[in-house]
Amino acid sequence: MAPKHLSVGSSDVPPEEGKLRLYSMRFCPYAQRVHLALNAKKIPYDVVYVNLKQKPEWFLERFPLSKVPALVVNNTDLYESLVIADYLDEAYPGEKIFSQDPLQKAKDRILIEMFNKVSGLFYKIAYAGPSPDPSLLPDLFDAFDFFENELKTRGTPFFSGSKPGGVDYMIWPWCERFEAVRILGGAQFRVPKDRFPKMFEWNKGMIEDEVVKSFFVTPEQHAKFMQSVVAGSPDYDNIL
Amino acid sequence: MAPKHLSVGSSDVPPEEGKLRLYSMRFCPYAQRVHLALNAKKIPYDVVYVNLKQKPEWFLERFPLSKVPALVVNNTDLYESLVIADYLDEAYPGEKIFSQDPLQKAKDRILIEMFNKVSGLFYKIAYAGPSPDPSLLPDLFDAFDFFENELKTRGTPFFSGSKPGGVDYMIWPWCERFEAVRILGGAQFRVPKDRFPKMFEWNKGMIEDEVVKSFFVTPEQHAKFMQSVVAGSPDYDNIL
Repeated sequence: MAPKHLSVGSSDVPPEEGKLRLYSMRFCPYAQRVHLALNAKKIPYDVVYVNLKQKPEWFLERFPLSKVPALVVNNTDLYESLVIADYLDEAYPGEKIFSQDPLQKAKDRILIEMFNKVSGLFYKIAYAGPSPDPSLLPDLFDAFDFFENELKTRGTPFFSGSKPGGVDYMIWPWCERFEAVRILGGAQFRVPKDRFPKMFEWNKGMIEDEVVKSFFVTPEQHAKFMQSVVAGSPDYDNIL
Repeated sequence: MAPKHLSVGSSDVPPEEGKLRLYSMRFCPYAQRVHLALNAKKIPYDVVYVNLKQKPEWFLERFPLSKVPALVVNNTDLYESLVIADYLDEAYPGEKIFSQDPLQKAKDRILIEMFNKVSGLFYKIAYAGPSPDPSLLPDLFDAFDFFENELKTRGTPFFSGSKPGGVDYMIWPWCERFEAVRILGGAQFRVPKDRFPKMFEWNKGMIEDEVVKSFFVTPEQHAKFMQSVVAGSPDYDNIL
């Protein structure tokens, strides 16, 4: 693994024998989805972290989209976090993280698509400026209602059932970052526990999950990174 | 099947025994994806077309997203054209329209994702005003290069191989509409044949495909519909 985020003027790191290669950025929520899928499936991989503000020349040249996550499988480059996660679950042995029932799988994929509303609002709130913007909080909580109700309907502590699975891991990265917004913006950014009791229990369960722990960043570290992004010089290596 | 697009004040149509129910709009390219997948798989379904400008009350109430396509499977509502197409291919017997090889399937899904750039530009060009806007044509053709090269690399007449399949059907709806833009905007909107010889052959093959024919709209009809949209009163029933 490359110790720091590689930047302009760097060279790519030779791949490790018998491992998948993931190009990533430590604070990218989409990349985090792939780390969680790989860790949940216990698939051996090495990581090259990329400075997305000053992308290395070799990265721009090799990947036409120049996005992370990018997973290299036998010289084939795969993009798009959800496509990669599905691929890993289908192609690799071990416990499945997504439902094997086509209808349940479709419902879970729709749920993940609906989370795009949450992640879009989260981005606007968190990166509004030196302080988070509270004006979109009501919209964010409205979008959250769907997920609270869904946990109620499913009647299980996690969206995947009695333990976290693919659906949970695909929406987790943004949830991990909410507490950082509260640190930066104060008590008004606290998610109301009485309105979202199921999501609160879900959150507690997720933080205790070994897979989530395997790629966890504390709220304080997230807050520090967000501030550095807003200030124009992302501190990619703040925990490496 | 409901004969016309149902609108405010209408009632929903009772489902037909033994058929899936698809809520659709005749000119929606995303809904067209699902029609093509259903027709390719020869799955029995009935259609209720919905006036998206004046949505029926029952449609707004039943579907929280109020989007088409929506497919009803045993009282479960499925959204998102790609999720629905994948579901149909997995859950129903008959010839598979998507690759069964996980890596090829992932590559095909990435290709469909990359087509979002084409469809986004297409929308901006086609719906710019009474006449299409030529300023984004160079960007559109640049985005097209990827697909021309991909056909060259794959070495097959269709993205799915020797005959059209899921990938082809998922990107076709926007390609069907290009000729309508030329009708409305004139010769400058002609896709240059010398730059895209493979895509030209692909297009000819697609128009002759039975599945594509099963839900085809002529360029003249598309042009007429586009004009009605830009004028503010979409002529949904123009071919029903």
